[in-house]
Amino acid sequence: MTKTKTLYFGAGWFNDKQTKAYDQAMEALKANPTVDLDNSYVPLQNQYKGIRVDEHPEYLHDIEWATATYRNDLVGIKSSDIMLGVYLPDEEDVGLGMELGYAMGHGKYILLVIPDEYYGQPINLMSWGVADSVIKMSELKDFDFNNPRFSFYDGAVY
Amino acid sequence: MTKTKTLYFGAGWFNDKQTKAYDQAMEALKANPTVDLDNSYVPLQNQYKGIRVDEHPEYLHDIEWATATYRNDLVGIKSSDIMLGVYLPDEEDVGLGMELGYAMGHGKYILLVIPDEYYGQPINLMSWGVADSVIKMSELKDFDFNNPRFSFYDGAVY
Amino acid sequence: MTKTKTLYFGAGWFNDKQTKAYDQAMEALKANPTVDLDNSYVPLQNQYKGIRVDEHPEYLHDIEWATATYRNDLVGIKSSDIMLGVYLPDEEDVGLGMELGYAMGHGKYILLVIPDEYYGQPINLMSWGVADSVIKMSELKDFDFNNPRFSFYDGAVY
Amino acid sequence: MTKTKTLYFGAGWFNDKQTKAYDQAMEALKANPTVDLDNSYVPLQNQYKGIRVDEHPEYLHDIEWATATYRNDLVGIKSSDIMLGVYLPDEEDVGLGMELGYAMGHGKYILLVIPDEYYGQPINLMSWGVADSVIKMSELKDFDFNNPRFSFYDGAVY
Amino acid sequence: MTKTKTLYFGAGWFNDKQTKAYDQAMEALKANPTVDLDNSYVPLQNQYKGIRVDEHPEYLHDIEWATATYRNDLVGIKSSDIMLGVYLPDEEDVGLGMELGYAMGHGKYILLVIPDEYYGQPINLMSWGVADSVIKMSELKDFDFNNPRFSFYDGAVY
Amino acid sequence: MTKTKTLYFGAGWFNDKQTKAYDQAMEALKANPTVDLDNSYVPLQNQYKGIRVDEHPEYLHDIEWATATYRNDLVGIKSSDIMLGVYLPDEEDVGLGMELGYAMGHGKYILLVIPDEYYGQPINLMSWGVADSVIKMSELKDFDFNNPRFSFYDGAVY
Repeated sequence: MTKTKTLYFGAGWFNDKQTKAYDQAMEALKANPTVDLDNSYVPLQNQYKGIRVDEHPEYLHDIEWATATYRNDLVGIKSSDIMLGVYLPDEEDVGLGMELGYAMGHGKYILLVIPDEYYGQPINLMSWGVADSVIKMSELKDFDFNNPRFSFYDGAVY
Repeated sequence: MTKTKTLYFGAGWFNDKQTKAYDQAMEALKANPTVDLDNSYVPLQNQYKGIRVDEHPEYLHDIEWATATYRNDLVGIKSSDIMLGVYLPDEEDVGLGMELGYAMGHGKYILLVIPDEYYGQPINLMSWGVADSVIKMSELKDFDFNNPRFSFYDGAVY
Repeated sequence: MTKTKTLYFGAGWFNDKQTKAYDQAMEALKANPTVDLDNSYVPLQNQYKGIRVDEHPEYLHDIEWATATYRNDLVGIKSSDIMLGVYLPDEEDVGLGMELGYAMGHGKYILLVIPDEYYGQPINLMSWGVADSVIKMSELKDFDFNNPRFSFYDGAVY
Repeated sequence: MTKTKTLYFGAGWFNDKQTKAYDQAMEALKANPTVDLDNSYVPLQNQYKGIRVDEHPEYLHDIEWATATYRNDLVGIKSSDIMLGVYLPDEEDVGLGMELGYAMGHGKYILLVIPDEYYGQPINLMSWGVADSVIKMSELKDFDFNNPRFSFYDGAVY
Repeated sequence: MTKTKTLYFGAGWFNDKQTKAYDQAMEALKANPTVDLDNSYVPLQNQYKGIRVDEHPEYLHDIEWATATYRNDLVGIKSSDIMLGVYLPDEEDVGLGMELGYAMGHGKYILLVIPDEYYGQPINLMSWGVADSVIKMSELKDFDFNNPRFSFYDGAVY
Repeated sequence: MTKTKTLYFGAGWFNDKQTKAYDQAMEALKANPTVDLDNSYVPLQNQYKGIRVDEHPEYLHDIEWATATYRNDLVGIKSSDIMLGVYLPDEEDVGLGMELGYAMGHGKYILLVIPDEYYGQPINLMSWGVADSVIKMSELKDFDFNNPRFSFYDGAVY
């Protein structure tokens, strides 16, 4: 029986490009025998009271909603084995950036996954540095989360 | 004689809007008697060997340049008293995000400054949560860095 | 087969009220299929050389005993997945408080459990803030330690 | 000119005994030339919106008040050089306990001060272990905060 | 089925004495039912591009090689449950020392193993302090990694 | 008036070579206007009760002495601005190694100083990686501790 690891699924869902990468990553993780997806943390499924501010803009100024959702995401990162970031080089996200820095502070292995068609494009220097490895989407289903290792991004950094 | 604090100047310089905010923040800090700007860290002035990749794209694949510049920025954050982020709500930056998460891990006080004309606009949830305070640009010159306190952003969060 | 989590069992044993809550929590954990109690850390069972100072007051000034017991408790927290605090609102304990702060620093999920009859009573602000969740004793046997989440205490804070 | 250090003033104000120790400690710090009290953090002076729940019980269930006051106290600890705890052996406080653990995580020097008449009485094991030094109230005004050192508590630990 | 733990195998391979201890420790771990050696991290098997500088001195000045190997070792420590140091009292190693300090910062349980014939000899004060336990080589195969505890070194410290 | 920084003086004193480097470094620091040596921490001057085990071998098995000296050194590192290591490439010290790892965890700027005659010789990979800068002894008196920066070691790493 293969050992499995849990992860924080850091991925955006705000436009078609993001949604496509989101779905590809999710499929790959389901196919990966070293991942325990049932006990992983998916932010979109953990918005406070099930409320998404993109659908309920009346919560944009709700301190209770924001505090709980923020704290929940931190719980997701600190309680998971791996910090996964689905990364689009030309749509880099400040929220994912902060999560990467937080994950680094708690000693999580940090893996960035870039869709094959964008792999190699320049990525931000701080994302480059904080990542323990940066792989292609097509490599995700076979990535061995039980033996995570360091490697340099095979692409540009600005 | 007023005590002074050092800071990491987290601000972008990649377009006119960023440059304008960059200059405004720098002016305000020079006028602030609680800031020790001479001993603060300004990333743009600390690119490895003085080379900026936006001017020298041949360094986009240079591991030595990237490693040294990344490590230097981390030194800047951990060696300074305060983590300052010049924040543009509609141009949020993944690099600043990672720096905020890293600064949180090292217990730095985190201050975000938003130009007055954008203050109140929605900001990312993780930036909202990691910030100890979010102020207007016009308040920066009088901010008391010797007595930093927590306050909620007086604006929206998504 | 259900995955299981280990925990640090933070609970007092110095009076009847504490002992009652101690026993209730222990029973609930034994019944919880997501808990690996055999490999968890129970402070009372890990006093240095099996000596309890409440029974052997001659050890009250023993630096070796105190150092080893203190260090052992820290090992218990950092080596466990979860920090559990059995919490009595009107008998709050400074030792548990320190353990909560230490657990926070090491990124442990922090769960407070309050006996049903006291649930809702005011708890200290710092305990309130450091807790990722505060539940009733009757909920403990069904708590899913594999999917820990954030929630606010449904009670008062002072 | 003597260098000075800032500190987080961890002391209770909920009964006469606490208030007395609170005042004694404050007087000693004012007399200590190595302390910068103006730029230190005093929790009682930093309750959110100036509201104390002991005077305004209607705030006991206010998430905004609790979150802001909690976060502010964390800012006070991480932004100060020293974590000071005014410690009463028979009125140990869970909130101070949590603050000690948090301060340890951020590498603050931790000093406990006990009124002379109680010095030597048994203190909790975790407070004993986390403290870098435990002194008498009468020693506080001469304590050299610029050269903080480790020492064992000259008293009992349980 | 016994639960298993992963570890970072901190051991030198630069002379016969080190190699002997290296092999003894590896054998003991293979025989230990609480260890998951397949998913553990062995530095010698993780030199960047499989290159060992002791065999390829032309890499002694290679920043890329050094950065990747260093980062990989950090990944090995932070991704493993346990920090194991094979310790020779008269050949103490600065690299292992740094790894111990790093492991402490990330809350790993730290176990030092000394060959039986050297057990009891003086070890460095900082190694002594950072270790959660120091055992004999002959005890390693039976050490219960699922219930790690603190104990003092039964030997000298200088 | 120049601002000054405090430091932890990590240097050995166990043979002539070490003593020589020790003295050279101390002289340079006295001459450096950005250093506050009076409020810095020098381990040799902070052995518990003024007892050195190299002079009093009867303390080699004294848990109280070892615990207090170890804890005091940790206080020295966490309470200082800078972690300084006087580094001899062919006499690398495990104790200094551990201190470097601990200092990294607390976000201290880490400076290694090598006597000019040994500068360039191979140093351990983990020391290489943890160092923010590695300079020659002759550069120490002019090093600007108020503006610490990252740089690669201009020498070999094994």
